[in-house]
Amino acid sequence: MRIGMIGLGKMGGNMAERLRRGGHEVIGYDRDPSISDAGSLKELVERLDPPRAVWVMVPAGDPTRAVIEQLGELLSDGDIVVDGGNSHYKDDQRHAVELDAKGIGFVDVGVSGGVWGLEYGYALMAGGAPEHIGQLMPIFEVLKPAGEDGFVRAGGVGGGHFAKMVHNGIEYGMMQAFAEGWELLEASEAVTDIVGTFKSWRHGTVIRSWLLDLMVRALEEDPDLAELKGYAEDSGEGRWTVQAAVEHAVPLPAITAALYARFTSRQTDSPAMKMVAALRNQFGGHAVAS
Amino acid sequence: MRIGMIGLGKMGGNMAERLRRGGHEVIGYDRDPSISDAGSLKELVERLDPPRAVWVMVPAGDPTRAVIEQLGELLSDGDIVVDGGNSHYKDDQRHAVELDAKGIGFVDVGVSGGVWGLEYGYALMAGGAPEHIGQLMPIFEVLKPAGEDGFVRAGGVGGGHFAKMVHNGIEYGMMQAFAEGWELLEASEAVTDIVGTFKSWRHGTVIRSWLLDLMVRALEEDPDLAELKGYAEDSGEGRWTVQAAVEHAVPLPAITAALYARFTSRQTDSPAMKMVAALRNQFGGHAVAS
Amino acid sequence: MRIGMIGLGKMGGNMAERLRRGGHEVIGYDRDPSISDAGSLKELVERLDPPRAVWVMVPAGDPTRAVIEQLGELLSDGDIVVDGGNSHYKDDQRHAVELDAKGIGFVDVGVSGGVWGLEYGYALMAGGAPEHIGQLMPIFEVLKPAGEDGFVRAGGVGGGHFAKMVHNGIEYGMMQAFAEGWELLEASEAVTDIVGTFKSWRHGTVIRSWLLDLMVRALEEDPDLAELKGYAEDSGEGRWTVQAAVEHAVPLPAITAALYARFTSRQTDSPAMKMVAALRNQFGGHAVAS
Amino acid sequence: MRIGMIGLGKMGGNMAERLRRGGHEVIGYDRDPSISDAGSLKELVERLDPPRAVWVMVPAGDPTRAVIEQLGELLSDGDIVVDGGNSHYKDDQRHAVELDAKGIGFVDVGVSGGVWGLEYGYALMAGGAPEHIGQLMPIFEVLKPAGEDGFVRAGGVGGGHFAKMVHNGIEYGMMQAFAEGWELLEASEAVTDIVGTFKSWRHGTVIRSWLLDLMVRALEEDPDLAELKGYAEDSGEGRWTVQAAVEHAVPLPAITAALYARFTSRQTDSPAMKMVAALRNQFGGHAVAS
Repeated sequence: MRIGMIGLGKMGGNMAERLRRGGHEVIGYDRDPSISDAGSLKELVERLDPPRAVWVMVPAGDPTRAVIEQLGELLSDGDIVVDGGNSHYKDDQRHAVELDAKGIGFVDVGVSGGVWGLEYGYALMAGGAPEHIGQLMPIFEVLKPAGEDGFVRAGGVGGGHFAKMVHNGIEYGMMQAFAEGWELLEASEAVTDIVGTFKSWRHGTVIRSWLLDLMVRALEEDPDLAELKGYAEDSGEGRWTVQAAVEHAVPLPAITAALYARFTSRQTDSPAMKMVAALRNQFGGHAVAS
Repeated sequence: MRIGMIGLGKMGGNMAERLRRGGHEVIGYDRDPSISDAGSLKELVERLDPPRAVWVMVPAGDPTRAVIEQLGELLSDGDIVVDGGNSHYKDDQRHAVELDAKGIGFVDVGVSGGVWGLEYGYALMAGGAPEHIGQLMPIFEVLKPAGEDGFVRAGGVGGGHFAKMVHNGIEYGMMQAFAEGWELLEASEAVTDIVGTFKSWRHGTVIRSWLLDLMVRALEEDPDLAELKGYAEDSGEGRWTVQAAVEHAVPLPAITAALYARFTSRQTDSPAMKMVAALRNQFGGHAVAS
Repeated sequence: MRIGMIGLGKMGGNMAERLRRGGHEVIGYDRDPSISDAGSLKELVERLDPPRAVWVMVPAGDPTRAVIEQLGELLSDGDIVVDGGNSHYKDDQRHAVELDAKGIGFVDVGVSGGVWGLEYGYALMAGGAPEHIGQLMPIFEVLKPAGEDGFVRAGGVGGGHFAKMVHNGIEYGMMQAFAEGWELLEASEAVTDIVGTFKSWRHGTVIRSWLLDLMVRALEEDPDLAELKGYAEDSGEGRWTVQAAVEHAVPLPAITAALYARFTSRQTDSPAMKMVAALRNQFGGHAVAS
Repeated sequence: MRIGMIGLGKMGGNMAERLRRGGHEVIGYDRDPSISDAGSLKELVERLDPPRAVWVMVPAGDPTRAVIEQLGELLSDGDIVVDGGNSHYKDDQRHAVELDAKGIGFVDVGVSGGVWGLEYGYALMAGGAPEHIGQLMPIFEVLKPAGEDGFVRAGGVGGGHFAKMVHNGIEYGMMQAFAEGWELLEASEAVTDIVGTFKSWRHGTVIRSWLLDLMVRALEEDPDLAELKGYAEDSGEGRWTVQAAVEHAVPLPAITAALYARFTSRQTDSPAMKMVAALRNQFGGHAVAS
């Protein structure tokens, strides 16, 4: 089928390519005219036949909100908007209501796969009405990895991004667990072949996983990660996972620990630890570093 | 080759079986005479030819210490003891010194694989002198999974159990991350097909892993885990991981969170939360439950 | 001066009483007519002389929002509304804008002191314009404890409740620290006089504090807290503290641990620990409790 | 009474001074001859009359062990050794057994008070046999703060240091809670008078405490703590608290968070966060800092 793809960056561009390889016709739009097929959103919409499907793959927050608002003006009854970015599930619910007032359908899709997705497929978690998702199945079939899994209709509108948010929360926790284990091995003298130990774990252990495979790749390139700084961004879903948990009174100690470790990694100095140092100095005359 | 196996429980029994299927001759000893090949440790040792190899697969702590002490009396210069149980790495270092005084070699091996190891092989992390490990390679080759990985000489004596300890620490953190994510999905209404979401994650996602596969198996058997209680033992390595980290001043917030969640799961009531309730009542007149 | 007080519960009632003892005239309104001075909000407003001051002391969220909306209809240019409840600081900012459109001032005040405030005074953290706060100083002077401290203009609108929110977050962390220490003493045999130990800490130690005094009171009444259940509510500010921290990328590991411990205390069973038990059973054949 | 004091540093020197001001005769020994009263431990012992009392106030671990071993040689049946340093409670139990074989008593005393103790007294937590503690009461009476509290016989040998260890664990958690709250205030714009807010909290609030008073002192000297680095040592008791908790299966999430924050504060870069950065780069092509 024919589909519009808005946002042709690292994710959107590769997804458009995978769709084309799979036999679909993709009309892409990007703010960068050198990679855009259409000169404007309006032109993109005109080049699609009703009922139209438009996949939005732009940064979450204001950029996504702006694009969806414009699409609400350009599209018509029976068309469908897909938000494949990393939007918050509460934004989805607002967008669906706005579009629904004009008869336009809305589906939110959490997409996992990163730079490996073009080749191996993208895991897709979709939220929306069954009939909207049904119309898009030919698209999902090509984007997803081969085989039985890799696609789910997780729930109604917002369910796709909620599932992706939790996926990313779990990912934070898993990465932190591996990272902590590695740090402990580095700190001790007991294990002398750390890279070999990680490699060996890839078979037969309880912790075998794709993240472990990636750790081995990283360690083979740079065995002590000496080229890297211990500085990690967070992309939004980790924060949202913790905030959703607090809203629902669900304790998430390990995932929250992972999020906080990233916050700390980005501080050049810890204000809290300044206060601890100040207090130790006040009551004990302990030396402070300055 | 011929090897003695002491302890024929769930792990030792299956490992003996895998060794036999792989062409080795195993003489087993167990306190339970109905499954033991030899009537005593002494008889087991006599039925092996020097240089002998004896694999100890009994519970960590006193049982392992007692068996290794007895073996120190029964074995001779050039023999090797393998501790394949879940011993603490500092115990290994003591045992190696004691046995070395008699010319007996010592190798510690961390073993992962659980009930799946008989069929798929056991991941092995070994610690000890290269010559001792070299002598045992035919044994390791059969126990480990097919293919390149699944065995490592992690380091000198203690290195095998240290690596296994960290492996288990990482395992705690990963399990906790998955468990937290599942709890959040259960607490929210946003995702209606939770089992399907976990199934879909098995392909193309960042969190694909053996633990995820096992979660899907568990959820297919009992979609809300309604048959289970939220009660989890800890086997020792989790505690040792945290204690080793504290010794080395390494922060392990996610792994520690996982350990503490298990501690809490085993309390019928939380003493700390009694005190919090008492304090809230003292200062705010807040109602307490009793 | 004359002031209206809306909400005459445990907090509002005692505050009205303290104001009267301090020489102010308080006209109280409560939904419960048996304790209300005025028959309606309208009557309460009519019995005040412009420029009027009305202190709102009702539960945060919808009840506070509803009262402030009504007051917006009843009051006039130059009057002032004080929100002394536990509102979220973002609500304050909305309320101030709404009232300001009608020339009505708004001040938010975080109040600490609980059941002890009537006698010892209430600690007050105020947010708002200096001129509004200046008008209310006679009121604040009577409510606050004697002496130099106990009142602050923390910042502009919202600053009072933000300060109170952080106060409560700190309170969560302190209570959790004391509660954890007490649990460890109870779990060990090393200290046989636990109540005596807490009592002794009240002088000369680093941890001497009002919370410690309250612990001693609680332990003197019930030395093992045997009459209590380990069940603790959370009042909102703890959650908001964590959510504000996540928004600002500030790591709050100890305060968050305290919040999560309360969440856990209210679960009859831990879903996450069910999953951990299920996974242990899947890979290790470990027994599960059911 | 007459007592020997070994170790005349910041703590021991001030305690000797407070004892003298209280009417006791103190013979001090220090490795630094310029502040030592006696030329050797032997001379110190000879200048005391049996039954002798010797207070050891030297760094925990090897220094304390060495001094107590020497005292075991020099003292006689009926004498008493007091360990007032920060020893581990398991060391106490070993020392008591060794000395008891020679008829020498042993009492462990946890001491709190820091640089303020000379003036205000030292909080004392003692462990040992009632008769040994009884003999020392004149000493304790002078060292402790005036009034009812500030001294406890917490339990048998080891109980004093165990109580002090838990005291310090609680102290870690409280300091962390305050430090986190301060960091959040600094990160937000909502509160503009942060120092004033802390000052105001000293009266009427739930969190009023000596640590809060010290924070105010620190903030009055340096309102943003700009002169300090966020770097905090840990003195041993924090680690021991966590290790004792792990041994007893007691969850201490807030206290452990405080300990880990100190570990992190001393790292120039976080190895774990390097690994997280490496993994993000592997799966997502996310930029890394180097």
